[in-house]
Amino acid sequence: MSETDTNQKEAPEIENVEIPVAKESDKVGLPPGTLIYVDDDGKDDETLKGKSIIRLIQYNEAGYAEKRIHDAEEIRSLDLNGDKITWIQMSGLWDIENVRKIGEIFQINALVLEDLLNMEQRPKMEEYDNFFFTVLKQIWFDEESKSVKDIQISIITFDKLVLTFCEEETRVFGTIIKRIKKEDGRIRKYGSDYLTYALTDIIVDHYFYVLEGFEEWLDDVEKRIIKKADKEGVEEINRLRHELSSFKKISWPLITVTEKLEKSDSKLIKKQTRVLFRDVFDHIIRITESIETDHEILTGIYDLYTTGISNRLNETMRILTVISTIFIPLTFIAGVYGMNFRYMPELYWEYGYYVCLILMAVIVIVMIIFFRKKEWI
Amino acid sequence: MSETDTNQKEAPEIENVEIPVAKESDKVGLPPGTLIYVDDDGKDDETLKGKSIIRLIQYNEAGYAEKRIHDAEEIRSLDLNGDKITWIQMSGLWDIENVRKIGEIFQINALVLEDLLNMEQRPKMEEYDNFFFTVLKQIWFDEESKSVKDIQISIITFDKLVLTFCEEETRVFGTIIKRIKKEDGRIRKYGSDYLTYALTDIIVDHYFYVLEGFEEWLDDVEKRIIKKADKEGVEEINRLRHELSSFKKISWPLITVTEKLEKSDSKLIKKQTRVLFRDVFDHIIRITESIETDHEILTGIYDLYTTGISNRLNETMRILTVISTIFIPLTFIAGVYGMNFRYMPELYWEYGYYVCLILMAVIVIVMIIFFRKKEWI
Amino acid sequence: MSETDTNQKEAPEIENVEIPVAKESDKVGLPPGTLIYVDDDGKDDETLKGKSIIRLIQYNEAGYAEKRIHDAEEIRSLDLNGDKITWIQMSGLWDIENVRKIGEIFQINALVLEDLLNMEQRPKMEEYDNFFFTVLKQIWFDEESKSVKDIQISIITFDKLVLTFCEEETRVFGTIIKRIKKEDGRIRKYGSDYLTYALTDIIVDHYFYVLEGFEEWLDDVEKRIIKKADKEGVEEINRLRHELSSFKKISWPLITVTEKLEKSDSKLIKKQTRVLFRDVFDHIIRITESIETDHEILTGIYDLYTTGISNRLNETMRILTVISTIFIPLTFIAGVYGMNFRYMPELYWEYGYYVCLILMAVIVIVMIIFFRKKEWI
Amino acid sequence: MSETDTNQKEAPEIENVEIPVAKESDKVGLPPGTLIYVDDDGKDDETLKGKSIIRLIQYNEAGYAEKRIHDAEEIRSLDLNGDKITWIQMSGLWDIENVRKIGEIFQINALVLEDLLNMEQRPKMEEYDNFFFTVLKQIWFDEESKSVKDIQISIITFDKLVLTFCEEETRVFGTIIKRIKKEDGRIRKYGSDYLTYALTDIIVDHYFYVLEGFEEWLDDVEKRIIKKADKEGVEEINRLRHELSSFKKISWPLITVTEKLEKSDSKLIKKQTRVLFRDVFDHIIRITESIETDHEILTGIYDLYTTGISNRLNETMRILTVISTIFIPLTFIAGVYGMNFRYMPELYWEYGYYVCLILMAVIVIVMIIFFRKKEWI
Amino acid sequence: MSETDTNQKEAPEIENVEIPVAKESDKVGLPPGTLIYVDDDGKDDETLKGKSIIRLIQYNEAGYAEKRIHDAEEIRSLDLNGDKITWIQMSGLWDIENVRKIGEIFQINALVLEDLLNMEQRPKMEEYDNFFFTVLKQIWFDEESKSVKDIQISIITFDKLVLTFCEEETRVFGTIIKRIKKEDGRIRKYGSDYLTYALTDIIVDHYFYVLEGFEEWLDDVEKRIIKKADKEGVEEINRLRHELSSFKKISWPLITVTEKLEKSDSKLIKKQTRVLFRDVFDHIIRITESIETDHEILTGIYDLYTTGISNRLNETMRILTVISTIFIPLTFIAGVYGMNFRYMPELYWEYGYYVCLILMAVIVIVMIIFFRKKEWI
Repeated sequence: MSETDTNQKEAPEIENVEIPVAKESDKVGLPPGTLIYVDDDGKDDETLKGKSIIRLIQYNEAGYAEKRIHDAEEIRSLDLNGDKITWIQMSGLWDIENVRKIGEIFQINALVLEDLLNMEQRPKMEEYDNFFFTVLKQIWFDEESKSVKDIQISIITFDKLVLTFCEEETRVFGTIIKRIKKEDGRIRKYGSDYLTYALTDIIVDHYFYVLEGFEEWLDDVEKRIIKKADKEGVEEINRLRHELSSFKKISWPLITVTEKLEKSDSKLIKKQTRVLFRDVFDHIIRITESIETDHEILTGIYDLYTTGISNRLNETMRILTVISTIFIPLTFIAGVYGMNFRYMPELYWEYGYYVCLILMAVIVIVMIIFFRKKEWI
Repeated sequence: MSETDTNQKEAPEIENVEIPVAKESDKVGLPPGTLIYVDDDGKDDETLKGKSIIRLIQYNEAGYAEKRIHDAEEIRSLDLNGDKITWIQMSGLWDIENVRKIGEIFQINALVLEDLLNMEQRPKMEEYDNFFFTVLKQIWFDEESKSVKDIQISIITFDKLVLTFCEEETRVFGTIIKRIKKEDGRIRKYGSDYLTYALTDIIVDHYFYVLEGFEEWLDDVEKRIIKKADKEGVEEINRLRHELSSFKKISWPLITVTEKLEKSDSKLIKKQTRVLFRDVFDHIIRITESIETDHEILTGIYDLYTTGISNRLNETMRILTVISTIFIPLTFIAGVYGMNFRYMPELYWEYGYYVCLILMAVIVIVMIIFFRKKEWI
Repeated sequence: MSETDTNQKEAPEIENVEIPVAKESDKVGLPPGTLIYVDDDGKDDETLKGKSIIRLIQYNEAGYAEKRIHDAEEIRSLDLNGDKITWIQMSGLWDIENVRKIGEIFQINALVLEDLLNMEQRPKMEEYDNFFFTVLKQIWFDEESKSVKDIQISIITFDKLVLTFCEEETRVFGTIIKRIKKEDGRIRKYGSDYLTYALTDIIVDHYFYVLEGFEEWLDDVEKRIIKKADKEGVEEINRLRHELSSFKKISWPLITVTEKLEKSDSKLIKKQTRVLFRDVFDHIIRITESIETDHEILTGIYDLYTTGISNRLNETMRILTVISTIFIPLTFIAGVYGMNFRYMPELYWEYGYYVCLILMAVIVIVMIIFFRKKEWI
Repeated sequence: MSETDTNQKEAPEIENVEIPVAKESDKVGLPPGTLIYVDDDGKDDETLKGKSIIRLIQYNEAGYAEKRIHDAEEIRSLDLNGDKITWIQMSGLWDIENVRKIGEIFQINALVLEDLLNMEQRPKMEEYDNFFFTVLKQIWFDEESKSVKDIQISIITFDKLVLTFCEEETRVFGTIIKRIKKEDGRIRKYGSDYLTYALTDIIVDHYFYVLEGFEEWLDDVEKRIIKKADKEGVEEINRLRHELSSFKKISWPLITVTEKLEKSDSKLIKKQTRVLFRDVFDHIIRITESIETDHEILTGIYDLYTTGISNRLNETMRILTVISTIFIPLTFIAGVYGMNFRYMPELYWEYGYYVCLILMAVIVIVMIIFFRKKEWI
Repeated sequence: MSETDTNQKEAPEIENVEIPVAKESDKVGLPPGTLIYVDDDGKDDETLKGKSIIRLIQYNEAGYAEKRIHDAEEIRSLDLNGDKITWIQMSGLWDIENVRKIGEIFQINALVLEDLLNMEQRPKMEEYDNFFFTVLKQIWFDEESKSVKDIQISIITFDKLVLTFCEEETRVFGTIIKRIKKEDGRIRKYGSDYLTYALTDIIVDHYFYVLEGFEEWLDDVEKRIIKKADKEGVEEINRLRHELSSFKKISWPLITVTEKLEKSDSKLIKKQTRVLFRDVFDHIIRITESIETDHEILTGIYDLYTTGISNRLNETMRILTVISTIFIPLTFIAGVYGMNFRYMPELYWEYGYYVCLILMAVIVIVMIIFFRKKEWI
């Protein structure tokens, strides 16, 4: 992540267009294959504007070329034959017109286009006649809002061509581009399946960061709860559980995705790449297992919390009981000798008062011994 | 949903007939295939009366025709051959006679008829020799009663013919009819399987509305519980859990239904339609996953509630303990000097009273410091 | 169920025999196939005596005949060939001798006989060379004892012959007999598999009654718990849970039974009957799903109960705290002015007493305002 | 079980040998197939000594013979051919030398020998070239220590030969021997697979006793808990849960074992015996289902317990609150009139004292009415 | 474990090199197959330094040879043909250069090398063209820190060659070496698969030690909790749960590993070795089952704990209630006779004081009888 994509900064300004962001349920009643940009996240529309970019990368063992494309129509005139691998990155998906054009040029099913415009998609992998379609979620743990953020990345892999679609420009592509640029990079020697693998691998590897974020958070919460089981505690536990569920919901389908990529019948994925996808599959299994463990830890923290509350109540009651039990009998004795009966011989004893005080002291001492034995004080 | 079915308003009055609504268990002992209208919902009979409608729609790429039918016998004389797709909608299922006639005309198994008259049916898909039979539930979230309402829609799909049976007129059909009416609508180009898909798709898409209803409700309840964990809280949680279970019970079988529709061997479903059913399958998977998540959130809210109660008890006890612990010793001291012993030197000290008051003040201060340190006040 | 089996009343008295009722564990060590009547229910032996009946029913499309048989030997002389369907009902299974004879006559495996004599059998379906063996449980909800009662019914289906064995005479058979008697009944047109279906269907349909019984019970308990979370509440919840488990334990295996009946390779079950068994399978799925839901509702009620207890404790403590917090300071003030110090200026003020009372009133008012703000009173 | 094995009494004394009993973890690092007697039960070594016995039983339809063998070497000279079924019982497994010899004579895999010497084995069934190896646990419920005890029985079944290995002499064998002795016993007519079945069946049937033991225990605990939710209650619940888990752990693998025995490809198990093993499979299914139910009942009892504690707390607090709420105001009033203000007009009223007492009585009555309405007293 | 590896002591000092230990997430963005040593354990770097060792062992039935290797290059010149089995042990994996060289010499896939350098690997078994790759975790229970420690051992098995890679020198190898040295050891007669088995077996057998450690720990915690349910109790329960989860997470994948080893199609594993792997599989099944049981026991202990807290609160409240209920009425009576009304006849009775004391005594006795009946004191 320390590598920054310098290309990103060169991105020129783009005309401010009205972006029609729809909610999932706004699609009800539309015919299937209707292209509409769906994003339930409630992101600020401003952050979306002005960044629609199409970038073309071509490489083979011999060379590397990169080009900005302004209108998807330009792609038609490109030479996509030969031994070159072509990678077309599109970011800024509200630019539905360009998505449609790309779909037309490469004859992509309308349903696929609809799916890649829907940011609420589950990660999935689908095979079509001459390409396969992979939807992934790049995620990171936002320390400030303590939540998992995601960007959806869709990859369409043809024999010599990879198309990637992405909500906004993402840094992980920068890392891959750097590797491609290096003349001795292995990536230059392999095909489009290897590029797909490299993208999947780097995206999944980011999940480990999120995992670390959660583990830190869990540690923090646990320490706080042990110190003080207050009302905010359970709310934080709830928030944690909520975010952990989201993380699980994103990670879980990746098991199926990577398994499909490994075991697919598709000729587009070569045998040596399958081995690599198995590796990614191993990673995702480890991630989901760790999520399960984190979930158990969270349950443990919740137990800590509830028993913390109970213990606090116990302590409160212990104090009340100790104080009450000691003073109530004393007050009673004082009350007795505060009575106004005419004939109360003790009142007239010379040392009556002192005897009474001593009696009280004895009671206090007996009580204290009693509570000491009970380990209450 | 903003589109309203204007046809609905034109529906003429229908003679008020006694509708025999039975409960599930009233069917015990009847031979299988006995046609009886079963509805356990306890709906007001009035709402059912007067709306039995049969509507005939025919279309192909060239044209569109719509017709009201008053007696199922009329169907016999219709021309169902040629390249036209025929869609017969029947709503108002207590009109058993018409259902039986339709069954006879199209030679539908008596069990199928029995099933489509039983409103307690689970969503299912069954294949028969020359048609397949799909039972779906159209649902919506009733904001007022805070509950999931459903209407059962049964679809029988022949090669060129689709029959739909429905408790009462439903709006979703209106949307489809509009799309058919449009000359350039894709729906006009495809067969009966596409119409079945369109119906299934629009019904399933409505589930997202319900999901949103639940998410809002969950939010409301969470906020309320955080503010005050009162007795009504747990009852609302229970109601929520109950409704969520109903929703799950309706959604779950749709996984099987859509999977069957995608993977069925039936020649009635063409390959391009299967891809579309896979899309519906994806939707329903997402819905059921969200229900699971909602369930977890609900558990979290319940935890909030129970710990809320415990915290409230803790607070109550803290107040009691603080007040008791401060005043009980003071009262004791007052009691001591209220004793009537003849020889109590302190009583005769000139500043005895003030010393006593100061002593009391000291105790109060010490106690307050003690409780401050414990963060109780 | 409104139909009563008039035949039942005609049943003549039977000689009182000693019935050897064994418990499951009494069978340990006996060789397999030893015929012994096992019933763990602890039913009153009296209820069992005097009701062993064998009834023979023969029918085909043309006619119907019914006959009482007193000794199983009579069956040997019967004509079981031709196109007639024969149904032999035996009730009163402790009459082991007759069971053995029937077993001999129809060459039934000793293990099957052992199974049908064992009232603790799980519902199951087993295929043998020339018959299949189905064990079912007829159940009803006993309102009085609030429990699920069951009678075990074993069905042996040959090509043209159905044998049913039953602990005691059961009414459901009466309903079937009535249907057979009707000349136009479909049952007369079909074979032994249809009769088996009709029996299975009617037995399973009765499960809906039980379900309704549970739902009512759940409602009752919920209402009671909301009103008052007393000690009896949790005991009733426990009883409910217990009965629900029994119900589930009986219903669950029926899924396998009906699935086997639908998908069996046996030639004894015709294709059109399979469709009917699928229908029964659907019913049983719905029943088990409803049991699951009821279980969840029960969990909700239990939550209601525990939070009810907590809320009650909270309320109790609130009252105690309010009363204590108001009066303890007052009592302290009274104590102070009850002290006998010689020099206590306030005591000698003319309006000292009234000032003191006003002070107390102020404290009370302040406290009440405080608790009002906390919404405690 | 009422049948006792008279042979057991004839068992002669055996020389006292040092028995090397190892723990599971003592085997770490030893080469596989090293014969060592493993028993983690911590049984008294004394009970093991002096009972190593090898018994030879041979039978066919014509006759029956029984013989004590002192040294495994004697077996070599035996005639194991012909139509006789031979059953060699060995009990007292620490006599490793004899086990090894038997292994050599019948060419049994060293791993099998190692397994049958390891008393911590899970029940299992393994097929080898010319025999199959079954490990079972005979269990009983020890009323005194309230725990499930087990003895491991290993059965090796060849075509005409059955070897059984057992920690100590077990009674269940006696029952089988009796059955063999009876000339008309079915067991004499069948082969070694039937003998294996008879052993398995009798062992599994004993599980029903254990189940009954648990059910009684559960009943006892439930009754006790309802009466009094004391500290010992939860410890007993815990013990019950623990033992139930052990029981489940022993029973669960038997499902696989009996299923394998039923469905095995081995020619050693004849078709008619498979049917019998299916029967044993049915039994074990019923047993495991009942364990599940018992587990649920236990959960219910635990709920009874925790709510019992809460209810008790509630009751305690109710008493405290009633007493406090009634007397605290009264004491306050008494305090007021105990004040020493000079000018307190009420004190000088003639009936002041009685008015005061009446006031107090009114307060008490009001309070009692209040608590009555709350159903607290 | 009592056998110590004397060879370990002979290990010469190694030059202190800077070891680049990376965390899992540090690998993000690196191309696959990049060799980097990953260890998240946060082990002290010091413990890693100075122990990189390569040891060569060769043996066949005839002889045994052992050799220290200083540079992986030496391996090239070795004779690995003939009937000898060669075992190359490498410990100290941060020496990436040597790992790479070994990889080159034996043409091992870069991904395999990457995996064996990653100490966070899950146990797994993968088959390649001419070898299979097994990752295992040797574990032990560290009594002091009360946690499960593990060392990762990777095994690469060729036809006549076994490579083992290990974080640091491990003792279990010593035991195997000893067995190889013994001339009559079975291990000398078999191939590389047997050596792999021997390693797997000894590693898995160590899991039983860990299990024993946990069982002891569980016992300790249970005893402590029964004695006193303090705040530290729940923290220890949480720690136990945490460690048990780790143990489960390590053990679980071994089921798949050993199953694969048993059922693999690889020609490298001979039939008789498969039987042995099945044995290891049985062990690991028993271990995971015991972990499950331990988990249930832990749940039971947690229940003990929470009910312990509740019981303690109950007891506290009982004491408070008893003391309050006895003394509050007494204090009230004393208060009454402390009032200063002029006309209070009782005050002037000669035995008024004694009557009052007796009245108080009666109240105390009644209260004590009441609480006795409630079994509170």
